[in-house]
Amino acid sequence: MIITLKNDAPQRLIQQLVDEFKSQGFEIHDSVGKNYHIIGLIGDTTNVDERQIKANLIVENVTRIASPYKKSNRFFHPEDSIIDVNGIKIGGKEKIVVIGGPCSVEGLDHICSIAQQVKDAGAVMLRGGAYKPRTSPYAFQGLETEGILDMVEARNRTGLPIVSELMDSDQIDEFEKYVDVIQIGARNMQNFTLLKAVGKRTTKPILLKRGLANTIEEWIMSAEYIMANGNEKVILCERGIRTFEKYTRNTLDLSVIPIIKEKTHLPIIIDPSHATGNWKYIESMSLAAVAAGADGLIIEVHDRPECAWSDGAQCLKPAKFAELIKKARAIAQVVGRDI
Amino acid sequence: MIITLKNDAPQRLIQQLVDEFKSQGFEIHDSVGKNYHIIGLIGDTTNVDERQIKANLIVENVTRIASPYKKSNRFFHPEDSIIDVNGIKIGGKEKIVVIGGPCSVEGLDHICSIAQQVKDAGAVMLRGGAYKPRTSPYAFQGLETEGILDMVEARNRTGLPIVSELMDSDQIDEFEKYVDVIQIGARNMQNFTLLKAVGKRTTKPILLKRGLANTIEEWIMSAEYIMANGNEKVILCERGIRTFEKYTRNTLDLSVIPIIKEKTHLPIIIDPSHATGNWKYIESMSLAAVAAGADGLIIEVHDRPECAWSDGAQCLKPAKFAELIKKARAIAQVVGRDI
Amino acid sequence: MIITLKNDAPQRLIQQLVDEFKSQGFEIHDSVGKNYHIIGLIGDTTNVDERQIKANLIVENVTRIASPYKKSNRFFHPEDSIIDVNGIKIGGKEKIVVIGGPCSVEGLDHICSIAQQVKDAGAVMLRGGAYKPRTSPYAFQGLETEGILDMVEARNRTGLPIVSELMDSDQIDEFEKYVDVIQIGARNMQNFTLLKAVGKRTTKPILLKRGLANTIEEWIMSAEYIMANGNEKVILCERGIRTFEKYTRNTLDLSVIPIIKEKTHLPIIIDPSHATGNWKYIESMSLAAVAAGADGLIIEVHDRPECAWSDGAQCLKPAKFAELIKKARAIAQVVGRDI
Amino acid sequence: MIITLKNDAPQRLIQQLVDEFKSQGFEIHDSVGKNYHIIGLIGDTTNVDERQIKANLIVENVTRIASPYKKSNRFFHPEDSIIDVNGIKIGGKEKIVVIGGPCSVEGLDHICSIAQQVKDAGAVMLRGGAYKPRTSPYAFQGLETEGILDMVEARNRTGLPIVSELMDSDQIDEFEKYVDVIQIGARNMQNFTLLKAVGKRTTKPILLKRGLANTIEEWIMSAEYIMANGNEKVILCERGIRTFEKYTRNTLDLSVIPIIKEKTHLPIIIDPSHATGNWKYIESMSLAAVAAGADGLIIEVHDRPECAWSDGAQCLKPAKFAELIKKARAIAQVVGRDI
Repeated sequence: MIITLKNDAPQRLIQQLVDEFKSQGFEIHDSVGKNYHIIGLIGDTTNVDERQIKANLIVENVTRIASPYKKSNRFFHPEDSIIDVNGIKIGGKEKIVVIGGPCSVEGLDHICSIAQQVKDAGAVMLRGGAYKPRTSPYAFQGLETEGILDMVEARNRTGLPIVSELMDSDQIDEFEKYVDVIQIGARNMQNFTLLKAVGKRTTKPILLKRGLANTIEEWIMSAEYIMANGNEKVILCERGIRTFEKYTRNTLDLSVIPIIKEKTHLPIIIDPSHATGNWKYIESMSLAAVAAGADGLIIEVHDRPECAWSDGAQCLKPAKFAELIKKARAIAQVVGRDI
Repeated sequence: MIITLKNDAPQRLIQQLVDEFKSQGFEIHDSVGKNYHIIGLIGDTTNVDERQIKANLIVENVTRIASPYKKSNRFFHPEDSIIDVNGIKIGGKEKIVVIGGPCSVEGLDHICSIAQQVKDAGAVMLRGGAYKPRTSPYAFQGLETEGILDMVEARNRTGLPIVSELMDSDQIDEFEKYVDVIQIGARNMQNFTLLKAVGKRTTKPILLKRGLANTIEEWIMSAEYIMANGNEKVILCERGIRTFEKYTRNTLDLSVIPIIKEKTHLPIIIDPSHATGNWKYIESMSLAAVAAGADGLIIEVHDRPECAWSDGAQCLKPAKFAELIKKARAIAQVVGRDI
Repeated sequence: MIITLKNDAPQRLIQQLVDEFKSQGFEIHDSVGKNYHIIGLIGDTTNVDERQIKANLIVENVTRIASPYKKSNRFFHPEDSIIDVNGIKIGGKEKIVVIGGPCSVEGLDHICSIAQQVKDAGAVMLRGGAYKPRTSPYAFQGLETEGILDMVEARNRTGLPIVSELMDSDQIDEFEKYVDVIQIGARNMQNFTLLKAVGKRTTKPILLKRGLANTIEEWIMSAEYIMANGNEKVILCERGIRTFEKYTRNTLDLSVIPIIKEKTHLPIIIDPSHATGNWKYIESMSLAAVAAGADGLIIEVHDRPECAWSDGAQCLKPAKFAELIKKARAIAQVVGRDI
Repeated sequence: MIITLKNDAPQRLIQQLVDEFKSQGFEIHDSVGKNYHIIGLIGDTTNVDERQIKANLIVENVTRIASPYKKSNRFFHPEDSIIDVNGIKIGGKEKIVVIGGPCSVEGLDHICSIAQQVKDAGAVMLRGGAYKPRTSPYAFQGLETEGILDMVEARNRTGLPIVSELMDSDQIDEFEKYVDVIQIGARNMQNFTLLKAVGKRTTKPILLKRGLANTIEEWIMSAEYIMANGNEKVILCERGIRTFEKYTRNTLDLSVIPIIKEKTHLPIIIDPSHATGNWKYIESMSLAAVAAGADGLIIEVHDRPECAWSDGAQCLKPAKFAELIKKARAIAQVVGRDI
């Protein structure tokens, strides 16, 4: 960490600052030029708060050299992490996983029927929301436990592992018991209480969605929360960020794929449904994601989108979904993977 | 709600859609032009999900006429809501409230000393974080219960009601017992589980901060979550939104003041500390907020910002804070209020 | 266009508004419900300014049904436009074009050498800036006419058509004489004077970059400016939009590919260099663009990026560029194209 | 400027880089730590391109210490610049100027009538667009020269200096002859050709609007373009930036006021009409701007907003405008100014 001091900083205050850093165990590298004075902090600065240092009136600027994350950092863990979900492997050079299913679980028969259809299409996991984060308190909030149990039955019948969103640490026991991959939604990406809870209290893989307005660094720091609390099985999921554009629901940021691969060792999967908000754009964004190196896709599938209990506009019908997987497989093979 | 159908929509499917709306109790107003066909939905559309309607392949577009909020809507509640905090009134034409204090509680003596200083400067409430949402799991996470109890002692000594952030519904009983105003932080603005919990399980006023990337409508909908669950004492707090600008931490959106006053009956206060992230800009933004009609200010105050345990760069020293209040009072009087 | 009136609108004012629309030649469809009154405008609303109608105090809202663009609109021109550049065809199912070259022209020998290298790698056109839009007035502003003539010589030696940015209508004659594709840069996307000028005064194809903070609709409207002024040879180019993310220079929005193909008949090419600002991410974003259906790629190539006169950080070396084209070709073949 | 090198940078390449900087006349301060190596560049780095340095593979990061602007920089010019417009002074502790008038000039009688009304209300300058930047090529593009001459006549009758937008350097002679303050619009803020032209070819004060998605630093750099080319009379104008919010047309960023005052010596005025896009919010944002320290306001005024040829929704009627000025004057007096 490099601290630039103000030109007129009195020697007494500089000494005081330097002493404080030394007392925290840092080695100090002092560098004085004609129009600047900089201090280099040598040691593990992960726990150092830049904004606190900036509050010092003699400090002009603080530049972090090392990334603020450790457990997720590829620098300290050069090999790809491969996450195992009931025998399905995610990450590295493993097959690209495709996860399909409705936005919300809508009843036992429906989810079992969709599960079979997404399986037939080539998906290897089933998604479905039982607890739904809805902008309006008057909107359908999910079937809750009943929905989870419907998912379990769908797994029984098809063998597909199930992915569902956790909104409250009170449900962790239920999810630990029944669910195969626990999703943390975009709106909870910085619900640090929930991140700590899934770090400490479950061993299930966590699918961590990027927040609508969170930087990649904040997203990795949220993964770090889970990992630092004990659960290292984190899968990152990009689902679009909020911008000024109005023709799409959000703006899908596919550049996260090479960046996450460079900065971390975690798998990264893409959700083109929530990103675009429009079924017409899902296929091309899915193919793009695979070409760019994604480890998986999570796509909303519904047999009658116009009757979906939520987010019908961004669902594919099973036949379109099957076609998409076929094309994505061909792309995957070009980039040295398979689906 | 107005639904524009596609030009080539088959009559059979239109009839099916119309029948479905009728079965939900809506009156239908059908309007057919040469190049368009629109359906007007007459009735309470609060619970209707636009995106579900859009999923129907014969639908071109859906336009909501009525706002999706009810309890917070000024249309249904024309008088300003005045929130009472231990006798201090917030909103309407009441005095503008100034809330001061450190970002984090840092110990009993410190918070009591700051409390006295912000009181002397003219503040009427004390802020202080005991549970801290931090981007890094390695950063200081707050003194927790000890911090809350320190705040309580500061209240005992100064009489100032206390405001602190709640991050977990597990702490609601503690907050209900000790805290006067419960803050929901920006990162939890769409933590719907927490919103429901403070709606149902506490009668304390809720200070609801706007999320970093949330629209005003989403923010009002989060207030609606709390109100629809039983707690109508919601105070809205703008703290800056995330934009591309780099000279400030966030971009303070003061236009929310007239908008919140127009759309809702709830009080609105402004947090210039988190918005700008820089103590140098706090005073002018505070004066602007008062001139624009804000019902209050919440400002970070610290006696030694360079030693603050968090966010020192955006703290005012007590003397500057006292000066700010004096100037703000003069502005308040011009716009027909007082501080 | 659908105009929702306020509930309490006096009949006299409604009549006045309706008469005004009729006098402009619109047919009016009037629809009155219990709690709303809407007016449908039937006719060509392309020239109608929504904001003017909204200024009327009896108007609640205005919803545009038809898109505000005509010449670029696929609805009126269902076949793909194919743009011909010295025999190279862009758009439709034609070969995907790859354009390579340095950010700035740096001298005759250099541009000729790079031209040969990008040609050998598989590119079919040469890019190079002679007039440079730079944020700082103190930065290198380009070789100007000398740079254009250097490009011409590079074309003479390699046969590659040349693409260069026009910043001023005073240079149109020069560009018309020497350049094969005229680029309008992101910062000039809404320089309407320049758009009109290239519409009226040149027949060369225009490469229109998307502005840093412009919606897709505004971008299409800028294409419409050029086309409405007489030059229908417009190629759209996405180069990343400005968001809050800091790990990339801009956020590449690949969802424009299916959207531009749906809404317009124009070719769309992708610039991963300016979008990411980092050579390490160019390859994966290029493959993604091809998989998503782009008609071309424009990539910065430099033999010694650390010595480039501008934007070296986002340049590929020729060998990497050749490798990229090889991989992109394999992806192209999967999606039914070639390179 | 501080350059952090990669840990594994070979000594030979470091030496090469250092030699290059030395050959450019910089003094070098070399600082080697255990896990980092940094190079400090001492000298005038205004012309140094950070991105070029970053392109060097041995460079990890580059941090600029000094601001990239000189002529506009308060550091080199501590006193406020006061701009004189026909005897009206803008900036410093001078009276806050209020500029009023329609979005577009709509004819001689109309502009003269509005001019008299804004003068009666307390405005000291008249605004009016004769050349209009419109998103659509089919929208009204302004009365052009006729509009300018109408403005001149309005000045003759009222004595108010006139402000109008220049879109093309071809009109500079016309503007130099007739107009008192030349506006550069938001969409042309980075039209560097136009910036250079008004720097070189006119001595009239320039009102430089901030671009919709431009940082404060880029905006100052655009002022620097004008100043470095010879015209130091630049007035900055904030008119809202583009964000995700939908209840306002743009988000007014009032924090620019203290920031522009801190970083530069130039006057700053606020345009609440374009920022909010809604006449209802103009008054409170104007009062806020004055309280925050703005040097002026530019507000759209129209006698019949519903008939305005452009942007009627954001116009005040003359009576409301007069009332606003009265209130703003009271606020101004509190902050030590007058109107």
